[in-house]
Amino acid sequence: MTDARIKADYILETPMDPARAAAILAGEQSSGTFMAVPGETEALKARSAARVERLEDLGPVPAAALPGGAGADRPHRRVALSLSWPLGNTGTSLPNILATVAGNLFELSCVAGLRMTALRVPPELVTASPGPAFGAPGTRRLTEVQGRPLIGTIVKPSIGLTAEETAALVDTLCTAGIDFIKDDELQADGAVCPFDDRVRAVMRVINSHAGRTGRKVMYAFNLTGEVDEMRRRHDLVLAEGGTCVMASANSVGLTGMLALRRHAVLPIHLHRNGWGYLSRHPSLGFDYTAWSVLWRLAGADHMHVNGIRNKFCESDASVIASARGLLTPLSAEQPALAMPVFSSGQSAGQVHDTWAALGTSDLIFAAGGGIMAHPDGPAAGVRSLQDAWAAAMGGMSLQAASKDSPALAAALRTFGSGAGG
Amino acid sequence: MTDARIKADYILETPMDPARAAAILAGEQSSGTFMAVPGETEALKARSAARVERLEDLGPVPAAALPGGAGADRPHRRVALSLSWPLGNTGTSLPNILATVAGNLFELSCVAGLRMTALRVPPELVTASPGPAFGAPGTRRLTEVQGRPLIGTIVKPSIGLTAEETAALVDTLCTAGIDFIKDDELQADGAVCPFDDRVRAVMRVINSHAGRTGRKVMYAFNLTGEVDEMRRRHDLVLAEGGTCVMASANSVGLTGMLALRRHAVLPIHLHRNGWGYLSRHPSLGFDYTAWSVLWRLAGADHMHVNGIRNKFCESDASVIASARGLLTPLSAEQPALAMPVFSSGQSAGQVHDTWAALGTSDLIFAAGGGIMAHPDGPAAGVRSLQDAWAAAMGGMSLQAASKDSPALAAALRTFGSGAGG
Repeated sequence: MTDARIKADYILETPMDPARAAAILAGEQSSGTFMAVPGETEALKARSAARVERLEDLGPVPAAALPGGAGADRPHRRVALSLSWPLGNTGTSLPNILATVAGNLFELSCVAGLRMTALRVPPELVTASPGPAFGAPGTRRLTEVQGRPLIGTIVKPSIGLTAEETAALVDTLCTAGIDFIKDDELQADGAVCPFDDRVRAVMRVINSHAGRTGRKVMYAFNLTGEVDEMRRRHDLVLAEGGTCVMASANSVGLTGMLALRRHAVLPIHLHRNGWGYLSRHPSLGFDYTAWSVLWRLAGADHMHVNGIRNKFCESDASVIASARGLLTPLSAEQPALAMPVFSSGQSAGQVHDTWAALGTSDLIFAAGGGIMAHPDGPAAGVRSLQDAWAAAMGGMSLQAASKDSPALAAALRTFGSGAGG
Repeated sequence: MTDARIKADYILETPMDPARAAAILAGEQSSGTFMAVPGETEALKARSAARVERLEDLGPVPAAALPGGAGADRPHRRVALSLSWPLGNTGTSLPNILATVAGNLFELSCVAGLRMTALRVPPELVTASPGPAFGAPGTRRLTEVQGRPLIGTIVKPSIGLTAEETAALVDTLCTAGIDFIKDDELQADGAVCPFDDRVRAVMRVINSHAGRTGRKVMYAFNLTGEVDEMRRRHDLVLAEGGTCVMASANSVGLTGMLALRRHAVLPIHLHRNGWGYLSRHPSLGFDYTAWSVLWRLAGADHMHVNGIRNKFCESDASVIASARGLLTPLSAEQPALAMPVFSSGQSAGQVHDTWAALGTSDLIFAAGGGIMAHPDGPAAGVRSLQDAWAAAMGGMSLQAASKDSPALAAALRTFGSGAGG
């Protein structure tokens, strides 16, 4: 039995003595309960109890962020708390690790705010987990895109196109020089656009372009569903020559994701829809850098991070922290890096800031309107993004680069520094 | 193709004209996007667009409940919003229905608060879903408990006991006359208490008692894990004569749950740990009555609802609303009722209020300290709960009933009207 431990960091808000609240959290999530029970011996605690590893007072907060707790009218404090658990409690089972680090503790009445900010896992766990099979290197190998991000887009309207209409749009996008296309998360296997029909129609187009250009566009087919459906759909994508599948994390759960990963021989593009209910209140839920660790261990190759100056409510700082998190190794031997996927209102105007913040091009940069609504057409839309990335990576300003690139100049006139759809 | 629709109700808070915000939500979760796209024809919208079914102004709110939205300094209003989607968008796929009714919409910048309060599903969906195979009738058949709730408990300490120590505790509880025992959600397959060892040791005890009494105690073994693990563990429980398995909803996801349900021939006890991060802020996430619909459709037989005067932060009104929700049919033909599981600080003192609020005994009433810490021992603890339920259901007060029941009288002296561990 290993003595390795899993560590989680939280920001806790409480009206209670923080040390006592921390002890309650540690007890509730391991060998303790509301009252002392006969079997909780010192030997048992030594082998199974969670430990408070760190407790730092971050000062008072004006009020209870979340209602329902005890002592709501008392002064509250915010503390940085780290807990650790023996790996022996859960083994290397990711679903059970989630129940341990983020189970019943959010509802404790001493908790007036609780947010997980980091999840630090021992190398034993990384080694035992499947992890991403492709990541950026494998995705680059399949798409033959080197030295720049993959330029991607999302099929829109999200839902309602038939398989043939989707394929026609894919034809336009392939002609425009796109690297990556994905289904919307709303599009899986509906009556108007059944999964199998869509795969066959889209791959006919993609394979035809690949025959002409020698380079195959990667299409992430949303196969979210039951385990047997996902396996069968994966095999259909593979049989038709496709190179990527997509699943919705919060729909399939860690167990569904692991079942897909164990079966898949294609990259898994993981969509985070529903992330808002896990994160939107700053004193509840998860930071993405913490939550995403479990999905990277489970095998996500691509993970969404929103984008700079996006159309949602997320700040640029949060977007960049998420992307940096995905690019931070989980262990020296097995970094388990996932490729960040930028999207939401992206166009050439956000490229320089994205590059400046990350310093890597190991990402997917997806634009909708930034490509399809480019005044000179989708090919100019793709070109504008490629030229913006070449400029950013070459140390040239957007203004300077746009002198040599009419596509980039038109993109900047049309979309400015943000927006684009 | 059916014209059935899925309907979801939300409480939305927004600084925007509510009708415009509602249209944005409906568009984002179906055929629309941030800007008009060429393919979004009237025909496409007619077959695939979400509809705003109801919009009722509930008045002003003092401030934005969630940060990051647009217009945070403008006046906000709260509205009751109902959206509907054609079943054709998702088919009867529960994971994809979740992505549709609770996907990207929580992050929209026009949203300063969004909580799903109801999910109303068409009969076609209920019929196509597996639903609970056992529910209360099947659970009663297996446990031979009629006319009163199952009296249950949770193995404590939650984690750290060996398989043999767990079995010894189960022996005590069986001797005490318990109906139902469950693993803690932290206990799945750790190094100290491997799943297989625990099943074998516990079932040896339970089978031995059943041989003596003719009645088999139901033990919910927590088999949370990967799909193949869960299937194999289920089969072991079955082979050893066990009658229930347990899984953590947020760990296995809907896809994992469905995989278990498709395989299982035993009741599935569904644990909601993590429910706090989905629900603790009143302007974010889900009401339990809405969220639990998907899990009932997926096949949960038992679902946790906390308990009256519990040790967590949830109000009694919320607990009772959750239990009533589980007992409300999803369709006339297939009610898909899940058995509510009451727990957390329960003892004889909460029985009358629970009965008064629900008017049914089709539930599991679980107590920890209320049984194990009873001053006259666990058998008296079980007896006190049985006697309290008999009194409540027979229209007799606790005080009156305790005159004929020393166990009940002692429970009331020790635990009062709440608490108990």
